[in-house]
Amino acid sequence: MTRFAFTIHATDGAARTGEIAMQRGTIRTPAFMPVGTAATVKAMKPESVRALGADIILGNTYHLMLRPGAERVARLGGLHKFMNWHRPILTDSGGYQVMSLSDLRKLTEEGVTFKSHIDGSKHMLTPERSMEIQRLLGSDIVMAFDECPRADRPRDEIAASMELSMRWAKRSRDGFDIGGDHAERSALFGIQQGALDQDLRRISAEKLTEIGFDGYAIGGLAVGEGQEAMFAALDYAPAMLPENAPRYLMGVGKPDDLVGAVERGVDMFDCVLPTRSGRNGQAFTWAGPVNLRNARHAEDSGPLDPRCPCPTCTSYSRAYLHHVIRAGEILGAMLLTEHNLSFYQQLMAAMRDAIAGGTFAGFARGFRRDYLG
Amino acid sequence: MTRFAFTIHATDGAARTGEIAMQRGTIRTPAFMPVGTAATVKAMKPESVRALGADIILGNTYHLMLRPGAERVARLGGLHKFMNWHRPILTDSGGYQVMSLSDLRKLTEEGVTFKSHIDGSKHMLTPERSMEIQRLLGSDIVMAFDECPRADRPRDEIAASMELSMRWAKRSRDGFDIGGDHAERSALFGIQQGALDQDLRRISAEKLTEIGFDGYAIGGLAVGEGQEAMFAALDYAPAMLPENAPRYLMGVGKPDDLVGAVERGVDMFDCVLPTRSGRNGQAFTWAGPVNLRNARHAEDSGPLDPRCPCPTCTSYSRAYLHHVIRAGEILGAMLLTEHNLSFYQQLMAAMRDAIAGGTFAGFARGFRRDYLG
Repeated sequence: MTRFAFTIHATDGAARTGEIAMQRGTIRTPAFMPVGTAATVKAMKPESVRALGADIILGNTYHLMLRPGAERVARLGGLHKFMNWHRPILTDSGGYQVMSLSDLRKLTEEGVTFKSHIDGSKHMLTPERSMEIQRLLGSDIVMAFDECPRADRPRDEIAASMELSMRWAKRSRDGFDIGGDHAERSALFGIQQGALDQDLRRISAEKLTEIGFDGYAIGGLAVGEGQEAMFAALDYAPAMLPENAPRYLMGVGKPDDLVGAVERGVDMFDCVLPTRSGRNGQAFTWAGPVNLRNARHAEDSGPLDPRCPCPTCTSYSRAYLHHVIRAGEILGAMLLTEHNLSFYQQLMAAMRDAIAGGTFAGFARGFRRDYLG
Repeated sequence: MTRFAFTIHATDGAARTGEIAMQRGTIRTPAFMPVGTAATVKAMKPESVRALGADIILGNTYHLMLRPGAERVARLGGLHKFMNWHRPILTDSGGYQVMSLSDLRKLTEEGVTFKSHIDGSKHMLTPERSMEIQRLLGSDIVMAFDECPRADRPRDEIAASMELSMRWAKRSRDGFDIGGDHAERSALFGIQQGALDQDLRRISAEKLTEIGFDGYAIGGLAVGEGQEAMFAALDYAPAMLPENAPRYLMGVGKPDDLVGAVERGVDMFDCVLPTRSGRNGQAFTWAGPVNLRNARHAEDSGPLDPRCPCPTCTSYSRAYLHHVIRAGEILGAMLLTEHNLSFYQQLMAAMRDAIAGGTFAGFARGFRRDYLG
C-alpha cells in the first residue's frame, strides 16, 4: 500500500488542489484538520467530525504525553483505536505547546525539561522522545520537534532558534527513521522557521529540503504578528519549499486567513478556532462571524446561516442557539462546534472546487465581499 | 385524532404494560421520560434521545418560565419546534421546583411568589398561571399545580398541604379546560399527595378521581424517605388510583427503584439520575453502577457494559471513558449520558417484554441478582 503520495490535480495561480494518499485514507487538499487535543475533538463524536467532511484530524503530543500518557495509549492499541477515529491523524511534536503551556521550562541543545501544567510532574522532550511518543500514539503524519520563538524577538535570537530547530529537524528525521514498522506506514514533516525574516526562512527551507521530508510545515506564524504580516511572509515562504510536497501552515486560522493562505500556495491547516469559538457562542457564517450570546438573537426564528446545510442550521433557530448558549447548556457547545467545523469543511471544499475550475480569484473576491462585509 | 387513549395490553401481578396514544406519538408503558430541563436533554441531541428509545421527554415549567420565558417560546412556535423534539412532551407544573430552587418564596392560598435563582426577578405561580405556561409551551401532558412538602413534616402540615394541593388540582382542571385548542390536543394529570400517610393518600386519590384526570401522578415520594419507605407507600398508593389511567411516579429513580415501582403498578417515570450521573462520570450497567473516575479503569480495554448495545459500549473502552471524564472533556458527558439513557430505555423495554410474557417476577429477581450483586 502507498505510504504517502501527494498528487496535485490542478493549480490556479499559486493555489493548488490535490490529494494525499495514505494507508488510513486519502486527504483532499487544501485540507482543514480539526484539532483533537486530548484524544477528542471537543464536543464532537468522531463519526460526526467525519460526516462533516474531515479527512484527517490533529492530536497534541504535549497533552497526550501528560494524560493519558503515550505508553498507556500504545498499550491500549494506539490513538486511533483509543479515540475511535480510524482515518489519518497528524500529531504535532509538542515543541510549541511545551513552551506555551508548561511550567518551569528549561531549554538546552538536548531538548526541553518542563513541569506538567496538570499535576506538576517533571518531563523532558527531545527530538528523539517526541518521535518515540508520536510512534507510540501511532500517528500517521509525525511533525519534527522544533522550537517556536515569538516573532517579536531580536533577529539573532530568531536566527539561533531557527538553527537549533534545524539541528532538531535532523535528529527528528533520524529518530523517525529507526521507527521500524511505524516509519514504513507513516510520514514525517519538517517545519520551516525564521519568523518574518525572508533570509532566515530561505536558510531554513534549504536545510529542511536537504534533510528531506514528506511534507513541509510553515511554523512560527499566527503567533500575534497580524494577518498583513502573515500574508507578507506567505508571499515568499511557501515557494521556498518543494513544490511537489504538501505545505502545512500550522495553527491557522480565521476563515479569511485560510482563503489568503490557499491563495499563496498552502495545502493544509489546523486551528482550534472553530471548536473553541463554538464553545464560547461564536459562529462562523458565509456572512461573517456571529456572536450568539448577543440579545438581538433572542427571538430570531431564522437559521444561523441560511446558506449552510449543516444539522445545526437546518434544525435550530438562532433563538434556540442563543438560549442554550446563554443557559450554559452542553448542547450549545455541541451545535455550534458542529456548525463551525461544517463551515470550515464547506469553505475548504469550495476552495478545492474553485481551484479545480480555475475560478479561485473570483471565489476569493466573492468570499471576502460577503464575509468581511 | 385520538387526544389521549391508554390501553393496557397485559398485566403480571400488579405490573402492567400498554401504550398511551396521543397526537404527537405513542408512549409505550412502563415508560421512562428523560428530563429536558431547559429545553434540552443535557449533552444529547434530540434525535439521539429518540434513537435510544424514548417516546416522551419531560420539560420543566419553572426553568422554562424564567429562561427563555413561556411567552417567548410561544412566539417561536412552541417548545417542540424550539427544541427540535416532535414527539410528546410532559411538563411539570413548576410547583416542586419553585419550592426547591427559588429564593424568597411566599406560599398563600392563591399560589407562590418567588424570586428567580437566575436573575433575582420576581414571579408568581398559581394553578391558573401554571396551566397558561404549560399551554404556551404547547405541552402534551400537563401536570396539575401542587405543593410538595417534605415527608418528615408533622402530619397536620402534610394534611394541610395535601388539602391545598387538592384545591389547586381543581383550579388546575378548570384552568386547563378553558385552554381551547390546546385542551383538545393535550392531557391533564392530577398529582396524589399525602407523603407516607395511607389515609391522606386515600383522601387525595378520592378527591383527584372525583375531579377527573387523564392520568394520575404519585407525588411527594423520592424526597429522601429511602427506598424501603417508598416501596411501602407504593404497596398501597397506586391501587387507590383509577386502574384504567396511567400512574406516574414523579422524580424516580435508580434502576432498582424503577423495577420495584413497576412491580407495584407504576406506568411512568422521570428522573435526572441517568443524565446528571453521566455528566459526573457515573454509569449504570446490568452489573450495577460504575464510577468511571476510578483509577482501576485507566487501562481497562473492555467495554463499559458487555451486555449493552449502545454506541458508547460498542465503540469505546472503559480506559477511554476514564480518560475523557478525568480530562473534563464534553465528550465524556455525551458518551456516558447516552449510555445511561440507553440503559434506562433497555431496562424499560425488558420490563415491558417480561410483563407481556408473564415472567416479570423472574425478570425482577434476575435483575436484582446481577445489579445489586
